[in-house]
Amino acid sequence: MKKIGVVLSGCGVYDGTEIHEAVIALLAIARNGAQAVCFAPDKNQTDVINHLTGEAMAESRNVLIEAARIARGDVQPLAQAQAAELDALIVPGGFGAAKNLSSFAAQGAACQVDHDLQALAQEMHRAGKPLGFICIAPAMLPKILAIPLRLTIGTDIDTAEVLEEMGAEHVPCPVDDIVVDEENKVVTTPAYMLAENIAEAAAGIEKLVTRVLVLAE
Amino acid sequence: MKKIGVVLSGCGVYDGTEIHEAVIALLAIARNGAQAVCFAPDKNQTDVINHLTGEAMAESRNVLIEAARIARGDVQPLAQAQAAELDALIVPGGFGAAKNLSSFAAQGAACQVDHDLQALAQEMHRAGKPLGFICIAPAMLPKILAIPLRLTIGTDIDTAEVLEEMGAEHVPCPVDDIVVDEENKVVTTPAYMLAENIAEAAAGIEKLVTRVLVLAE
Repeated sequence: MKKIGVVLSGCGVYDGTEIHEAVIALLAIARNGAQAVCFAPDKNQTDVINHLTGEAMAESRNVLIEAARIARGDVQPLAQAQAAELDALIVPGGFGAAKNLSSFAAQGAACQVDHDLQALAQEMHRAGKPLGFICIAPAMLPKILAIPLRLTIGTDIDTAEVLEEMGAEHVPCPVDDIVVDEENKVVTTPAYMLAENIAEAAAGIEKLVTRVLVLAE
Repeated sequence: MKKIGVVLSGCGVYDGTEIHEAVIALLAIARNGAQAVCFAPDKNQTDVINHLTGEAMAESRNVLIEAARIARGDVQPLAQAQAAELDALIVPGGFGAAKNLSSFAAQGAACQVDHDLQALAQEMHRAGKPLGFICIAPAMLPKILAIPLRLTIGTDIDTAEVLEEMGAEHVPCPVDDIVVDEENKVVTTPAYMLAENIAEAAAGIEKLVTRVLVLAE
């Protein structure tokens, strides 16, 4: 059974992993006969957002502990992830990808990426294993791999221009589809960068998971 | 388009709504062409559990604010729910159903149910609208409706005996199936009371949502 690393960044779209995207990915992995292995960095979130009002809360929460809510407790520190034990890597979106896994939300093209995520994704890429990045998570890819890549974050022109500035070729993509960089085995989908409801997000994510598993053959 | 009330109880299996169950239900509602309308009680959680260790945390969190993580901000106070505006009601599981929506975890057969949930579910039942309760949430039904009901929480004998003590007829049910009380339009499924992975939980929840929507015709 193929093992698919899933990197979480908290629990909630505005300060962590987008929950729908993560659950849809986990379900698609299971239904394709593979096993998800969840990871998250063991560090504090950049912020805690009240998801009802959108305002910051005077709290501190740990990314790994909150990610455990999505993983039902079954999540490991990202620093312990071993590329050799995984067949592919999937990173759902949510602001956690741009605030906890990287500093993309604050720094754009000049962002830093979590060291453990960068090392893991680089090693998997060198080993010819596929990467599937969802929603805003693809914004980290030019920084992580530092090579020209075809990818999508949907149709948001401002974000796309930042990715091109970082060296990527941005391909506009509808919500229910994926962009595949076959040579580099990198698959991306817009999900909630474009989705107006959960079914739209699911259509693209399910295609992404299926393609990632094919590329992991 | 049919409107399906979904009652959340926080965000995380050990102190709130079971996240997978909620997201799978929301996705099934959307894919069946209906609209989910999320509600949660505006009150503090009974406790906050570290989902990595299972231990209590010295924190206080609000059920509605945390539920907004699952609902991407689109959730209303349960006290504002109007039965007349909804075609059916679905309640996912997780300990939130037994700790925040009711006191079933602490008090068993002698539990109290959140007043707003009880009033809403009773009014919908009187109007002939279906109720779909998932996982441990069915444990609230004998108290809410106070009539004999056929229902399931899976195969856990201890919990089943408590439900029978409360006046229900407990029907053992495999994880991928549902129990339907046709006369009362009450549908239940075990989900993570039995599921060993997310795909197993999804099979039963998707059947539940489909049947609830049929009963709402």
